[in-house]
Amino acid sequence: MDRRNFVKVGTIGAAATAIAAPAIAQSSPELRWRLTSVVPKTLLAHWGSLELFAKIVSEATDGRFQIQLFSVGEIVDANGSFDAVKNNTVEVAHTALHYFIGRSRAFPVMSSLPFGMNTRQSNAWFYRGGGIDLCNSVLAKHGVYALPAGSTGEQMGGWFRKEIKTVADLKGLRFRIPGLAGEILSKLGVLPVMIPAADVYPSLERGTIDGADFIQPSDDEKFGFQKVAPYYYYPSPWEGASYIHLVFNSERWNALPKAYKAVVTAAAKAANHDQTEYYDTVCGPALRRLVAAGTKLTGYNPDLVKTIHASALELYKDFAAKDPDFKLVYDAHIASQRDQSLWNQIAEFNYNKMIYSLL
Amino acid sequence: MDRRNFVKVGTIGAAATAIAAPAIAQSSPELRWRLTSVVPKTLLAHWGSLELFAKIVSEATDGRFQIQLFSVGEIVDANGSFDAVKNNTVEVAHTALHYFIGRSRAFPVMSSLPFGMNTRQSNAWFYRGGGIDLCNSVLAKHGVYALPAGSTGEQMGGWFRKEIKTVADLKGLRFRIPGLAGEILSKLGVLPVMIPAADVYPSLERGTIDGADFIQPSDDEKFGFQKVAPYYYYPSPWEGASYIHLVFNSERWNALPKAYKAVVTAAAKAANHDQTEYYDTVCGPALRRLVAAGTKLTGYNPDLVKTIHASALELYKDFAAKDPDFKLVYDAHIASQRDQSLWNQIAEFNYNKMIYSLL
Repeated sequence: MDRRNFVKVGTIGAAATAIAAPAIAQSSPELRWRLTSVVPKTLLAHWGSLELFAKIVSEATDGRFQIQLFSVGEIVDANGSFDAVKNNTVEVAHTALHYFIGRSRAFPVMSSLPFGMNTRQSNAWFYRGGGIDLCNSVLAKHGVYALPAGSTGEQMGGWFRKEIKTVADLKGLRFRIPGLAGEILSKLGVLPVMIPAADVYPSLERGTIDGADFIQPSDDEKFGFQKVAPYYYYPSPWEGASYIHLVFNSERWNALPKAYKAVVTAAAKAANHDQTEYYDTVCGPALRRLVAAGTKLTGYNPDLVKTIHASALELYKDFAAKDPDFKLVYDAHIASQRDQSLWNQIAEFNYNKMIYSLL
Repeated sequence: MDRRNFVKVGTIGAAATAIAAPAIAQSSPELRWRLTSVVPKTLLAHWGSLELFAKIVSEATDGRFQIQLFSVGEIVDANGSFDAVKNNTVEVAHTALHYFIGRSRAFPVMSSLPFGMNTRQSNAWFYRGGGIDLCNSVLAKHGVYALPAGSTGEQMGGWFRKEIKTVADLKGLRFRIPGLAGEILSKLGVLPVMIPAADVYPSLERGTIDGADFIQPSDDEKFGFQKVAPYYYYPSPWEGASYIHLVFNSERWNALPKAYKAVVTAAAKAANHDQTEYYDTVCGPALRRLVAAGTKLTGYNPDLVKTIHASALELYKDFAAKDPDFKLVYDAHIASQRDQSLWNQIAEFNYNKMIYSLL
């Protein structure tokens, strides 16, 4: 397999008038970095945004800075991605910080906080509200520097074999759900299980699990879940936004020339927005196909959501008391959510409501 | 005045190991371009995003590609910005395409279509739905190439001296409102007027106008409108998104080295999202201050909105029959709005509704 086929080597531009001075050339070294991703190439939204990132870096540096992309398992598995960067096995990981709650309770707040800010609000906080710097003040203690590199947008809330109406339906529910959301739901009697994507369909079919939290319609439809778990719930209370990050080894990041830092930062931002933009163009048609194939779109009961929310707040209070890093990032997130929600409710939310009443 | 003070000249990076070959240096010519903006430096969201754009281009090219920023009036006024690029007086304009509806009815669809897609949907269409290429197929006929460079997000719907409840209240209403929205409202009896920003407060105070469409709370509060026009309406039916573009002279754009095109494209995308991100962090607190100072936040009557929407659809039908370029861009916009709204309603909209019921 030619692992470089997705990183185009920049071509030499047309002849131009000026010759760069040697001092300038020295700030543009030939670099070849390796990146380990936690996603397979079949996860088109994530992988496509990652390819965009590497392509921009290559093109903008005239091919001098190449980042080779390795999908999950090619170098390390998902769980190994954080240490691979920390230990300098690779320079960059494309990974979900909430996978590493064991390293810091603050990490999930940086990537996917149940009942947290939506994607637009999170981006405002990251780029204009001091969020990126605040997160990196914590990440620096772990030897890494991170930039947001893609949000799914609000996710769907899971596939179920039977309807989930009240908190009583959660008792003993064997639900494939990771991370913080699993902890929150386990307080209400859910039995969170983690199984790989490929095992979800047979497990639902045999009834060894009752439901599975997955991603978005465009990903989910490939698995045919509607045949074995017809109820497709919305909205996901636990994934209002879900980010993947580019996580750099701190020393390698700090040693980059200023121009390369500028290129990588702009390319990461382009990739970050690209993932949401991609999902937004493909999820509508995918949802239409799923419903045509028998999927029963079902909204979560607002009273049940209130109970889950209360469980989340309890957990956050406990974490904040125990962990100053969690408190630091969580408090900033919540303050930004309050301010932005005031504005978003008046303008954007009301505009959407108006439009949906007219379409 | 040192007009260059906002474009930092990139510093030479730390010594690195590799020396670039002369052939590579030739693809990185020293360039110094001039940009004319239609906004003053006091419009912080727009100007800040523009500065970010120029800073990224400068830093990513190690200072070799400098874009000098000129605010409105320094080279040409807002109306002159399109021709300044077309005629190569400057290489770039930072301008609102809807100002130039006289050149093409398709232009407002590219930047601000009443009842059109919101910012998130527009971005998905631009970057992943073929929107940028489609718009440029029309813009090429006018000698320019354009990239989105900032959306305000959904705007507020105007300041009024008295309440606007029904279509009868629109008859003879002297309302400061530009462009397509002005045409749509004039069919319902509104007398659209255009006066400069500085004249709005005295005109409202004297009652020579009855209302004024302005921008966002963070801009509007500087003018003290609540003292002379207490009713601040939401949401704006005519500005679900409002974009400013970077408009390049086609020949100059085409002649750029590939690496510079990659840098400019990524920097423009960073700036485009930056403007919304900035507004989202400052509008909530600004709205809170305005309400504390006596502003009466008032929602538009849904029945009135329906009438305005019908008037808009009539106008669009008429434009589509007369103008193939309008039809081309409008049809693509509407198709994307339909698909994306299906998805947005199920997931994002319901998530926001859920969160606002819990906060």
